[in-house]
Amino acid sequence: MGESFIGIDLGGTEIKVALVSLEGEILRRDARPTPADEGVDAVIDAMVDLASGLSRDADVAAVGIGAPGPMNWQTGVVFSPPNLAGWVDVPLAELMHGRLGLRCFVDNDANCACLGERWVGAGKGTETMCMLTLGTGVGGGIVVHGKLVRGADGTAGEIGHINVERDGRVCGCGSRGCLETYGSAGGMVQTALEGLESHRDSALAARDVSEITAQLISELARAGDAYCHAVIRDTGTWLGLGIASLVNLLNPEKVILSGGLAQAGELLFTSIRETVSTAAFDVPARRVEIVAAALGLDAGVIGAAAAALERLEIEVQS
Amino acid sequence: MGESFIGIDLGGTEIKVALVSLEGEILRRDARPTPADEGVDAVIDAMVDLASGLSRDADVAAVGIGAPGPMNWQTGVVFSPPNLAGWVDVPLAELMHGRLGLRCFVDNDANCACLGERWVGAGKGTETMCMLTLGTGVGGGIVVHGKLVRGADGTAGEIGHINVERDGRVCGCGSRGCLETYGSAGGMVQTALEGLESHRDSALAARDVSEITAQLISELARAGDAYCHAVIRDTGTWLGLGIASLVNLLNPEKVILSGGLAQAGELLFTSIRETVSTAAFDVPARRVEIVAAALGLDAGVIGAAAAALERLEIEVQS
Repeated sequence: MGESFIGIDLGGTEIKVALVSLEGEILRRDARPTPADEGVDAVIDAMVDLASGLSRDADVAAVGIGAPGPMNWQTGVVFSPPNLAGWVDVPLAELMHGRLGLRCFVDNDANCACLGERWVGAGKGTETMCMLTLGTGVGGGIVVHGKLVRGADGTAGEIGHINVERDGRVCGCGSRGCLETYGSAGGMVQTALEGLESHRDSALAARDVSEITAQLISELARAGDAYCHAVIRDTGTWLGLGIASLVNLLNPEKVILSGGLAQAGELLFTSIRETVSTAAFDVPARRVEIVAAALGLDAGVIGAAAAALERLEIEVQS
Repeated sequence: MGESFIGIDLGGTEIKVALVSLEGEILRRDARPTPADEGVDAVIDAMVDLASGLSRDADVAAVGIGAPGPMNWQTGVVFSPPNLAGWVDVPLAELMHGRLGLRCFVDNDANCACLGERWVGAGKGTETMCMLTLGTGVGGGIVVHGKLVRGADGTAGEIGHINVERDGRVCGCGSRGCLETYGSAGGMVQTALEGLESHRDSALAARDVSEITAQLISELARAGDAYCHAVIRDTGTWLGLGIASLVNLLNPEKVILSGGLAQAGELLFTSIRETVSTAAFDVPARRVEIVAAALGLDAGVIGAAAAALERLEIEVQS
C-alpha cells in the first residue's frame, strides 16, 4: 500500500482536495470553485488537475471522492447529484481512474463524514456509532461492528428519514413526518414560522420572512430572544426523539452531530440530550455520548480519504 | 465441536428443550411446565433434567438458553425476568454449566428468535435483516454484516421502542409514543377501545371490555366486521411506519414478523407493506421482503441453539 490518500470533496460550489497520510493527517491541500456550469468534463478536469498537483512525488494508495446524492458505491457511478445539474449516471470512479491511473473510490458525503469522524475524529475507535449531518437536510451514516452499514443496495444510513410523526410534515422524499422535516435547518425555520403569529414579541417577528434562517434564529436565541430559544429547544426535542430511536436500536457509543445546525450549540445539544435521557432506555442512554463532530471544514477531504481506506480494507478482508 | 446443540426455551409457563443438529434440525424434544412458583432452584432442576434426558448418548457442543427480559449476554446473568418472580441477578449460564458440565450461553428471547430465523428460517442467508416479535410487547432483533447487533452494552435491537409519535401513548419503558404502544397486541386492543364509542355498529361493541383481545379483533375482522378490519389496518400502519424507519436506516433484505399478532394474517401484512412502500425510499422499499417467521412453535428452542452456535462462532473469530 502507498503512503497516503488523496481525498476529494466534490461540492456544488467548491472542490476541495487534500493529500492525507495513512494516519489521517492532512499533508497538503488545495481547492478551487466547482465549474458546475461547464459540464461533467470540466469538473473532472478540475478534480484531476487538483489531485495531480497534490500527488506529485507522493506515494498514493488510492483516491477517495465524496459526492452528494444517490450513487452506486461499488461501481462508483453517480446517478444525479442534486448540486451538479446535467450529471446523469456518471461513472465517476472509472473516469477518474482513467485520468489519474490510481485506484479511485466514490462514496456519498454523509458516509464519508461518518468514516472520517470514526477514523480520526470524534468517533475514533468506536465499534458502534451514528453520525448526523444537520444542514439543509439531515444526512446520516451508521457504523456497526466497526464497519459502515451499507445494507443490501448501499442505501442504508438515512437517519434523516426516520419517521418521527405519523401524518407529520411533508418531506422531500415523498413521505411525511421524517426527522429531516423537523430537525434540519429548514425544519427549524418552519417551526419558527409556524409559531410566529402567536409570538409577535419575538425579535424574529420584526424580520421579513425571507430573512429568517436557522443562523438568525441561533443568533437571536444567544442574544436572549425567548421564542428563538424555544424554537431551538423544540428542534432539539425532535432530533432527540430520532436519536433515542437509534439509541434503542443500536446502543451506540457515540452519536456525532455536524453541519450548520450543530452550530446552534449547547442549547440544541442540551435539548437533544435531555430528550434522549427520557425517551431511550436507561442503560444505552447513559452509555451514548452525543457530541459535535471534530473535523470541521476538513471533514469532507478526510472523510473521502477514509472512504478510500475503508475500500482497501474491505478488499483485504474478502 | 460436537454434533449437536441443546436449545432451551425458558418461558414463564413452559420450559421447552430440544436437541438440535448442527444444521438446525430438531433431533429430539421435550417440555414441561415451568415450576415458577417453586423458586430458582426448581426451575434450574427442571431445565437440567430435561437437557440431561435429551443429551444422553449425544455429542453436544453447547447449550443455548433463551430467557425473557434484561440480562448480560456475555456473563449469562439474568437480571429479573418479567415472568419469573423472585429471580434477581441469577448467574444462569454459570449455574447450568456447573450442573451439566457443558458450555452454556444465555440470550434474550427476541435475539434468539432473530438468530434462529436467520439460521434455518425465513431469514436464512441474509446479511441484513430485522425481526419483530409481535406479542404482548414488540420485541426485536437486528442482523447487520451477517451478525446480530448487540451494541455497546448488549441492549441493541429494541425495535418496539422506536419512537413513532411525539407525545404519543405512554409506554411501559417510561417513554411515550413507542412503536410497542401501537403495534403490539395490547396496542391494537387500545386502538380498538379508543374508537369503539363511535363504532357502536361493530360486533366488538357488544362484548364486555375484558373480552376484547387482539385475537377477537382478528376473528371478527375475518368474519367481516368493518371496524375490526380498520383497527387491524391502523395497527399495520403504525408497524409500517416503524419498519419504514428500519428500511431507511438499514436497507435490510428481510423484515420478519412473528408472535401472536402476526397471526392477524394477510390483512395486517398488507397494511404494513403498503405503509412501507409509501413511507420508505423506493430502492430499499422494493428490496425488503416483509414476511412471516418460518419456525413457528419451534422458534424458541431452535433460536436458543442458534444463539449457542453464534457464541462459538464469535469465539472462533476473536
